[in-house]
This record gives sequence, C-alpha cells and structure tokens, in this order.
Amino acid sequence: MRFVSFMKDGKSWLGVREAGQIRVVGDESLESLLARGVDLVEYGRAVASAQIVDPDTVTWLPPLRQPPKIICVGLNYADHTKESRYDQPDYPTLFFRVNTSLIAHEQPMVRPRVSDSLDYEGEIAVVLGKGGRHIASADALSHVAGYALFNDGSVREYQFKAPQWTLGKNFDGTGAFGPDLVTADELPPGASGLRLETRLNGEVVQSANSDQMIFDVASLISIVSEAITLEAGDVIVSGTPSGIGWAREPKLLMRAGDVCEVSVEGIGTLRNAIVDEPAA
Amino acid sequence: MRFVSFMKDGKSWLGVREAGQIRVVGDESLESLLARGVDLVEYGRAVASAQIVDPDTVTWLPPLRQPPKIICVGLNYADHTKESRYDQPDYPTLFFRVNTSLIAHEQPMVRPRVSDSLDYEGEIAVVLGKGGRHIASADALSHVAGYALFNDGSVREYQFKAPQWTLGKNFDGTGAFGPDLVTADELPPGASGLRLETRLNGEVVQSANSDQMIFDVASLISIVSEAITLEAGDVIVSGTPSGIGWAREPKLLMRAGDVCEVSVEGIGTLRNAIVDEPAA
Repeated sequence: MRFVSFMKDGKSWLGVREAGQIRVVGDESLESLLARGVDLVEYGRAVASAQIVDPDTVTWLPPLRQPPKIICVGLNYADHTKESRYDQPDYPTLFFRVNTSLIAHEQPMVRPRVSDSLDYEGEIAVVLGKGGRHIASADALSHVAGYALFNDGSVREYQFKAPQWTLGKNFDGTGAFGPDLVTADELPPGASGLRLETRLNGEVVQSANSDQMIFDVASLISIVSEAITLEAGDVIVSGTPSGIGWAREPKLLMRAGDVCEVSVEGIGTLRNAIVDEPAA
Repeated sequence: MRFVSFMKDGKSWLGVREAGQIRVVGDESLESLLARGVDLVEYGRAVASAQIVDPDTVTWLPPLRQPPKIICVGLNYADHTKESRYDQPDYPTLFFRVNTSLIAHEQPMVRPRVSDSLDYEGEIAVVLGKGGRHIASADALSHVAGYALFNDGSVREYQFKAPQWTLGKNFDGTGAFGPDLVTADELPPGASGLRLETRLNGEVVQSANSDQMIFDVASLISIVSEAITLEAGDVIVSGTPSGIGWAREPKLLMRAGDVCEVSVEGIGTLRNAIVDEPAA
C-alpha cells in the first residue's frame, strides 16, 4: 500500500494511492499513526467512507514531517566511499538530519545564498513502524513500516568546513523526502535488489542497485539500536551510491532551474526543481 | 529566575526554585511554553496559586525533554582541540544529539554494555526562547531564554569507529541536562566569563572559563542560523574544555559507582552517578 501526505484546500491529509488516484483516509499524520502502533495496511483497508482526489491537484508533503529522528548513513556504497576519498570504515558512518531541513516531492530544493555547492544524493529511506533497543538483525525487518525516496541534498562547502558534516547536511530546504511511503509488504525484504537512479535534468548521474549497500537495512537497524532507542516513525536514510557532482572533474553542482529526480524500482520517483534562496 | 522540571506523585511539573524551595507553576512543559512564545520570567511571576515543594522530595527531569533540536558544538575550547589531536577548525564543529539520549540531574548515566569507554564533558547549554533564520550576531542573544548545565557523556570507542561522531555521542542515558534553566537576565550576556568545573568523585578534572570559547554563544546562534531555521526550545550545547578522560595517559574512564558533577558559576551543579547497563 502506498501512503501519501498532502495539502488540499488548506488542510493536510493522509491518503492511499490506488489506480492513479488518491483515496483520502484521514487527517491523522503517519508519525501519529505509527506512534500509536497502528498497522498501516490494516488502517488503509479499514477506512470506508473515502473521498477520491486527483494527485495532480494536491500539494505534496513529506510522508512524515516530524519524525522523532532522521538517521542518515554515509559511505554505505563502496564506489561512493572511494569517490569521496575516504577509507571504507568497518562500521556505519551516521549523521542526523533535523526536521527543519525536510521538503516534499515537487517542492523546490533551495540552493542557499551562502554557497553554490548544492549537490544531490539519491537514497532509500526506511521508516520504522516499531521501535526498540538491542534489536537483533534477524528480527530487524519486522520493525520496518515501509520505504520512501530521499534526496540528501548536501551543501558540500559547509559539509567540509569542520570535521563533522552536520551543517552541510542540514540546510533548510535540502532534504527531499517522498512522495510515497510504500509499505514493506510490497517490496523485497530490506528493499534489497532494487535499481536506484538519480537524474539531473534528465541525464542519469547515479545508477546502482540497493544490494550494493555495505550495511543492509537489517544491519543498520540492529547496529544503531545497540546505542540508541529507536522509535516508531524514525527514519533511516540508507546512503547514496557513486556519481555525486562534487566528486566529478569538473564538479557538477545544481543550479536554479535544474530538476533533480530520484527513482527506485517499486518505490517511485521523487522530483525537485532547484531554486536560489532569495537574497537578504 | 530558575525553572526546574520534575516528577512528583507520578506527574510531571514545572516549578521555580526560590529560597531553597520549589514553587510549582504548572504542568505545561518548558518546550511548550517556549513554542507558544511565552516570556518565562513574566510567566513565573504571574502564577498566583502556587504549591511549595521540597526539592529533596522530587525526581528531576531534564528542563526540556523534547527540544526540537539539540545542537552540540565540538572543539570549541582551544586546549580541548589540542588534547583531542585535531587542528582547530575556523568554523564551528557541530553534531546533533537526539532526545532519547537525555537524562536528568541525579539520574544515573549509563555505561553501555558494548563499551567501557564512557567519558565526561562538562558544558553550558543554551536554550532558545525565539527561533529564526539568518540571525545577526548582534541580535542573537535576544533569542536566548536561558542557560543550563550539560554533561555530554561520550562513548569514545563508538565516537571514533567512523568519520562521524554520531553514535558515540548518542547512547541512551548519556546526555545529562539540568537541573535548572536559569533565565538569561540572571547571567552575564552569552553566559560569558563563568567558571566551569567538572569533578569525578570529587576530584577536579576540567576547569575553565566560558570566555575561552572560540565561538561564543552569539556567534554560534548566528552561524547555525545561516543554514538552519532555529526554533524556540532548541538547545545549543556549547562545547567542553580540556581535561577529558580519553586524552589522559593512562585514560581515565567512568565506571559504575563513580559520581560526575558539572558546576558552572551562577548556573548550579549537575550530578550523575554512573551505572552499568544491565547485561542482556
């Protein structure tokens, strides 16, 4: 089942995408449903009185706007680690995103006024339906509610101003997320074996398969939960393959008017045009 | 005015510390009050019907349990950068903490079962009363609601397993915060010029003055807001001076039964005993 969050007539709604249309299932957010322990597929089926909306008439929202945590994984594809000139760590490289950085499908991604080094990173996001601590790898996928697309827009100059990447990974308007949360039952376990492609103005700039992840989804959940209590609604953004613009010669950076798309087989396409942040 | 959050009779309360006692001012959380734009000092004065509670009878809570963001600053004292064997970056080194890592005053700090490398970092936390983006340095201190103490408990082995410090800075039960939120009017601008001391089992292990910060509080707010929309209730943890256990020869690490205290002139003392995480 494919859940979408959107604005219509000035209100935010949750819907299920079916046969090219959206069936409205209510106004409770996904993060609220997940926090209450609701099984999304059962919930989506149970709603009877449903309004149908044309997807072309809505304003998309990120599937979750206020996840408790957004845990991003760096250096999780060997060819990307190599192009980034890091030695491959034998442990996941993790950083957080904050909710203020999130944008939706078809919402502009913002090149900040302080830097012209905005780069793309196509990724698969994992949304947890159940939290926990010390989750065994064998049990980890039972904690997944579903998967979505993510473009981990990165302001490279700021990412490398200090030993931690934090600021360059958290500019307002750079974390594109959505449009669909595809429930886990519709995809291979751990979303493995899926083709991932990023396109800039129609040209393929990243192309990989999710089975190339160094730490797969089950391992990531298990390893993070050795340290941190995971919560329903937490998002794990699982890393990007090679092809980033910053590693190219000459560098390929996104500019106002560019359109960046991330597609993953079975999940969909996330599209964002680039705009400049207005001058002061 | 000194605000404290605590549990009493199974409920959470907000109070003001006055003359050795706590005057209860309600059950709304500080993060909720700050999000509503409430001026804390006016609010604390306005509450008339007030119950008095003996501080020795309460269970402390972190001043805020669900701040929108916890932004930590690394390498913000030159002598600590040197002992950590980093070159001093000319830009703040930032990382996030997540709320699941927070503990209160007098609550045990947890040495995780996966590592014995739990270290202390005494720091001053800045709580924002007003958010914003592109906040000028000259205006930044008007965004501060108050200051509190923080012990940025760090699991060093995990901090250095990968290029990002994230996991080692976010173990459950390692981020001690509180007990008092001291409103900004009671302290020097930017909490500068204050003596900071960390003690382990009564022995002074860190001793510095907050005027040694490389990026002062106003600069931190201004610089972060170049990238990120700050929100009321956000916490900026401003960095630790030298003296950490991991940099000593031999290493000094915290063990079950140890007691760690962080004191800052005018703010108070934060005390946590160390316990081992129970075995699986």
